[in-house]
Amino acid sequence: MRALYLDGELALRDDYPDPQPAPGESLVRVRLAGICGTDLELIRGYMAYRGVPGHEFVGEVVASADERLMGRRVAGEINAACGRCDFCIAGLGRHCPDRTVLGILGRDGAFAEYLLLPDSNLTPLPDAIPDELAVFIEPIAAAYEIFEQTEPGRNEMGRNEKIAVLGDGRLGAIVALALKAEGYEPIVGGHHATKLRRLAALGLRTELEAKLASGFDVVVDCTGAASGFNRAATLVRPRGRLILKSTAAAAATMNLAPIVVNEITLVGSRCGRFAPALAALEAGKVDPRLLIDATFPLADGLAAVKAATDPSNFKVLLKIS
Amino acid sequence: MRALYLDGELALRDDYPDPQPAPGESLVRVRLAGICGTDLELIRGYMAYRGVPGHEFVGEVVASADERLMGRRVAGEINAACGRCDFCIAGLGRHCPDRTVLGILGRDGAFAEYLLLPDSNLTPLPDAIPDELAVFIEPIAAAYEIFEQTEPGRNEMGRNEKIAVLGDGRLGAIVALALKAEGYEPIVGGHHATKLRRLAALGLRTELEAKLASGFDVVVDCTGAASGFNRAATLVRPRGRLILKSTAAAAATMNLAPIVVNEITLVGSRCGRFAPALAALEAGKVDPRLLIDATFPLADGLAAVKAATDPSNFKVLLKIS
Repeated sequence: MRALYLDGELALRDDYPDPQPAPGESLVRVRLAGICGTDLELIRGYMAYRGVPGHEFVGEVVASADERLMGRRVAGEINAACGRCDFCIAGLGRHCPDRTVLGILGRDGAFAEYLLLPDSNLTPLPDAIPDELAVFIEPIAAAYEIFEQTEPGRNEMGRNEKIAVLGDGRLGAIVALALKAEGYEPIVGGHHATKLRRLAALGLRTELEAKLASGFDVVVDCTGAASGFNRAATLVRPRGRLILKSTAAAAATMNLAPIVVNEITLVGSRCGRFAPALAALEAGKVDPRLLIDATFPLADGLAAVKAATDPSNFKVLLKIS
Repeated sequence: MRALYLDGELALRDDYPDPQPAPGESLVRVRLAGICGTDLELIRGYMAYRGVPGHEFVGEVVASADERLMGRRVAGEINAACGRCDFCIAGLGRHCPDRTVLGILGRDGAFAEYLLLPDSNLTPLPDAIPDELAVFIEPIAAAYEIFEQTEPGRNEMGRNEKIAVLGDGRLGAIVALALKAEGYEPIVGGHHATKLRRLAALGLRTELEAKLASGFDVVVDCTGAASGFNRAATLVRPRGRLILKSTAAAAATMNLAPIVVNEITLVGSRCGRFAPALAALEAGKVDPRLLIDATFPLADGLAAVKAATDPSNFKVLLKIS
């Protein structure tokens, strides 16, 4: 099959072996895939991943022992867990120590004509959710993970919490849309006036990062940069929360002193369950389609990745079948 | 009066001006003071503090408009707050933006014959608590702050949480003693076999840090070093908590990737209320006196500070009056 393959460098291959489902796995023909910041970090060498990248996708099940799935259009949770360990039993398979992760860890991903996932990872999609919306389920689920870890609400002073999302990239945009969908009024801080204007067109409050003043009850760091983290730590009020949705790929120079002095709680946050994200999409509460900048065929996958690295772009998709 | 004075370098002065109480402040004759890691960091240049250091003390009120205090032996909370702002009204004067902090920020401290604190900061001490015990109230309060921020208990897997305290210094020792006093069984990880033996003599479980295996539900980082933080981040299980009681004085190279990937919650933790610490001392639940290595007169204050920097020592005191 055709696939983008990462082995130190990313290359387009037409002869990549067709995946063979193990028992309990379904074979999925990928329809549409999204390129995310993690993919770009993997391509830059983060985690020394070797294989097919890609973990945001919509596809069609073309081989499965599960009748609920066969022939259906699906999205899929990306962590394939053992199902038997303490984490799995506690409903935290996303942290199973023996997990593989689609396109990230030990499991070929979605930048290919076909992929494999355990049947239990796949969710049939209602017809009302088109591919261009469904391809955002994974990052929306990651945004909704915030609510499972820490519920914004009222602060110790009895006021509605002030929330900032730092970073005007694809992740910051989707986190802000999810917060807005749930009734919060985040302000997005970023460096790029043109991107902030596009986010404002989505109904989001925006501000140039340099103009943000300290005192936020909650800051969500979506910058993926050490400098962004250090800035976020100074924007949070004492006893506030800093939610870390992204991290610099490598170790970097950071100052944790404000975290201790101001007794900030820092919440590391990664993948989320798909159910809340799917519910939000079905209810029409989140619609990030205006973030799509370009859609490339898989044959132009390298150009698509190049476009995704352009900081003026939010979201680049691969139309695969 | 005699005082240790920090102005770039630490010096003993015999001509330091006697402090003059403002309305609402009491004048305290210092009896005994403890040297803590923060003092050593200040002396190394952290926060560019200029003044008399020292914030762990027992003293006697020699001038006060408050009859409850006059002539009494007291300990004192170190954050002097405005009493009017949102934080103060919410009972979080420790985070008042206009606060001064005894011996740390804008207020001369305890390495002197006399100090000033607002009347409301002072707590009369019961006779049953001798000076050598009472001088530990401030660090014990800082340790008890952990319970106000996050209550260890049972994890998502329904098991008693496994707790590690990283760092076999004075702070790690007191944090571990407080956890033990409240019924937990922390294991202290450190680099110094001789210090770990002394902690074992206090009834604490200990282990060389290199021998600790990952999987702790809660890790309390008391190392004060970036390397310690990075190690702590790898010892916490996914979805566990890392409590940061100390921090490297300067920005340092750190890797936050495990915090995000494993969705760890990092809790910055600083000063605590005195009431729980005083209650623990009164009940005889915490007794760190075995940690005292040496007691110097104020005239030998520079030698005392030197002794406190010796990593084989836990606690050095200054006997002032």
